Amino acid sequence: MIRIGVDANGGDNGVNTTVPAAMKAVKDFKDIEIVLFGDEDKIKPLLTNNERITIVDTKVTMDMGEHDPVRAVRKMKDSSLDMVMYACKNKEVDCVVTNGPTQCVVVAAHLIIRRLDGMDRVALCPLVSNFDGNPRLILDVGANVELRPEHLGQFAIFATVAAKKVLKIENPTVGMLNIGSEPGKGREIDKESYDYLSNLEGINFKGNIEPNQIIDCPTDIVVCDGYSGNIAIKTLEGTAKTMGKMLKQEIKASFGGKIGYLFMKKNLERFKKRMDSSEVGGAMIFGVGAPVVKAHGNADSYTFYCAIRQVRKMVESKIIETVIEALPKTPKEEI
Amino acid sequence: MIRIGVDANGGDNGVNTTVPAAMKAVKDFKDIEIVLFGDEDKIKPLLTNNERITIVDTKVTMDMGEHDPVRAVRKMKDSSLDMVMYACKNKEVDCVVTNGPTQCVVVAAHLIIRRLDGMDRVALCPLVSNFDGNPRLILDVGANVELRPEHLGQFAIFATVAAKKVLKIENPTVGMLNIGSEPGKGREIDKESYDYLSNLEGINFKGNIEPNQIIDCPTDIVVCDGYSGNIAIKTLEGTAKTMGKMLKQEIKASFGGKIGYLFMKKNLERFKKRMDSSEVGGAMIFGVGAPVVKAHGNADSYTFYCAIRQVRKMVESKIIETVIEALPKTPKEEI
Repeated sequence: MIRIGVDANGGDNGVNTTVPAAMKAVKDFKDIEIVLFGDEDKIKPLLTNNERITIVDTKVTMDMGEHDPVRAVRKMKDSSLDMVMYACKNKEVDCVVTNGPTQCVVVAAHLIIRRLDGMDRVALCPLVSNFDGNPRLILDVGANVELRPEHLGQFAIFATVAAKKVLKIENPTVGMLNIGSEPGKGREIDKESYDYLSNLEGINFKGNIEPNQIIDCPTDIVVCDGYSGNIAIKTLEGTAKTMGKMLKQEIKASFGGKIGYLFMKKNLERFKKRMDSSEVGGAMIFGVGAPVVKAHGNADSYTFYCAIRQVRKMVESKIIETVIEALPKTPKEEI
Repeated sequence: MIRIGVDANGGDNGVNTTVPAAMKAVKDFKDIEIVLFGDEDKIKPLLTNNERITIVDTKVTMDMGEHDPVRAVRKMKDSSLDMVMYACKNKEVDCVVTNGPTQCVVVAAHLIIRRLDGMDRVALCPLVSNFDGNPRLILDVGANVELRPEHLGQFAIFATVAAKKVLKIENPTVGMLNIGSEPGKGREIDKESYDYLSNLEGINFKGNIEPNQIIDCPTDIVVCDGYSGNIAIKTLEGTAKTMGKMLKQEIKASFGGKIGYLFMKKNLERFKKRMDSSEVGGAMIFGVGAPVVKAHGNADSYTFYCAIRQVRKMVESKIIETVIEALPKTPKEEI
């Protein structure tokens, strides 16, 4: 049995999102048990089927707008987020799914579950929809504003294992986000990282990836520091959203547009779906000792279900055990 | 008379783009003269109207894929790009328009025209299309991979003048690109820059701008280092382009889509136009002693014409003279 811990109070809609998702997950996957960490009074009325679902009661919830994640994680030990992380640390569950505030999730995973030996940093790694329909792993997109070449190397190794295990890609390719395609491009640190990744064993490094390739990407994995990655991911999201708004506005602007819409409604829905990342679940937290998946704060039940499905796959495919094997064996100093 | 120097050999299509653009410009603006620096043998057959247009012959062209811009600019003094820059330095023309390779344009402007006193760096500043139809000034997007707070301050002052003069905005607002909206977000340098800009006189600073706001932006101006700005701009371009490809593919995928397209053809054309930056000309090079506008390498004649119109406005509105007034007066050490 795979035991999945769910932060049931998290996200913009709390139990209304997480509980239906958990019920669908236990129905679809007979090899999982779910522990819901959350407000029992709110969960129980929604829990029409409690086969392989248990509740650990807590009314305390991490605020979605929390500005001081380290303080919050340290102080709010009775929050649903902290509690599910402690349960994971204590091996009461095998993994964690949450749609809580991103920085709190990263910090809680880091401080409570703890980093793996050989991983000096924790990375936030979403699966990003791409033109060809195959999602890409992009990391880090916000856990660390600055990173050394060795950290990118560890992320590349971790993501290579994840791409093999979760996306079933045989020999995943790795690129590095940079402002030009040639090796000498970017800041000094980018040149160092390029050299480091070029010589790193165990990854299939293909060189620089320019930001305009991010949703039509020639590699399976893109590594970057969390500052650059966050800019790329947020620009992508903002552009997609604003373009969607513009398209809607233009279609509605004339009678011809409205008639045309009736004919191509399905086409436009498919278009929207291709840009939507919900199908692929959530962002993975790489670097700690257990699989953690963070869904969007505004994820709906289906998206949250996909995140549960994703974390199940990560446990089933023994991603952490394989990463431990893949990481360089010599114990490293803290960098 | 405003004397405009045009690098006629530049860009992907050379004289076929630049010559028709120049002819349209002299027809529309009676107060300009154009000097075309380029291959006379190729220009003459296209030049059906040479009123207020003269040619300075050179067959040499900067390669669009040039990897070593400093070397190229230093060695290729007989290239159309170097020649138009020297003509500007020697006051034979008042300003420059080119669609040559970006880094070579930045380097040539820097090395040949030279920086203004009080500007320690040169910035590349495109006008970026936005949801509300008003373009934003975003700088730097690629001239400098790393910048100090003072440099961002100088860029903010320069862009404030440009927004007033070129976009006719009375009291332009300034934001700083960052990965969070609160003051303490980002790298150490971002925190320093935030403090510096908050206390800088002569600009209307409004705080951090998150990357997802870049095409639906609450400020008129966004300052950033060239590495971050380049990531944002290229991600925006890549996302817009790929989404356009996806939309086309989905519409073509069914009979209903094709019928619908006939009804909403005009709507979709307007949508495309809104995302297209061609109407607003080119990227401005800020920091040197004369207006320089760099159009896209693949700009068509109309876009190149818009770039000529833009540089004319920069000269007419005395942008450089006003910036000199606006910059802090005390002579500064090279930073």
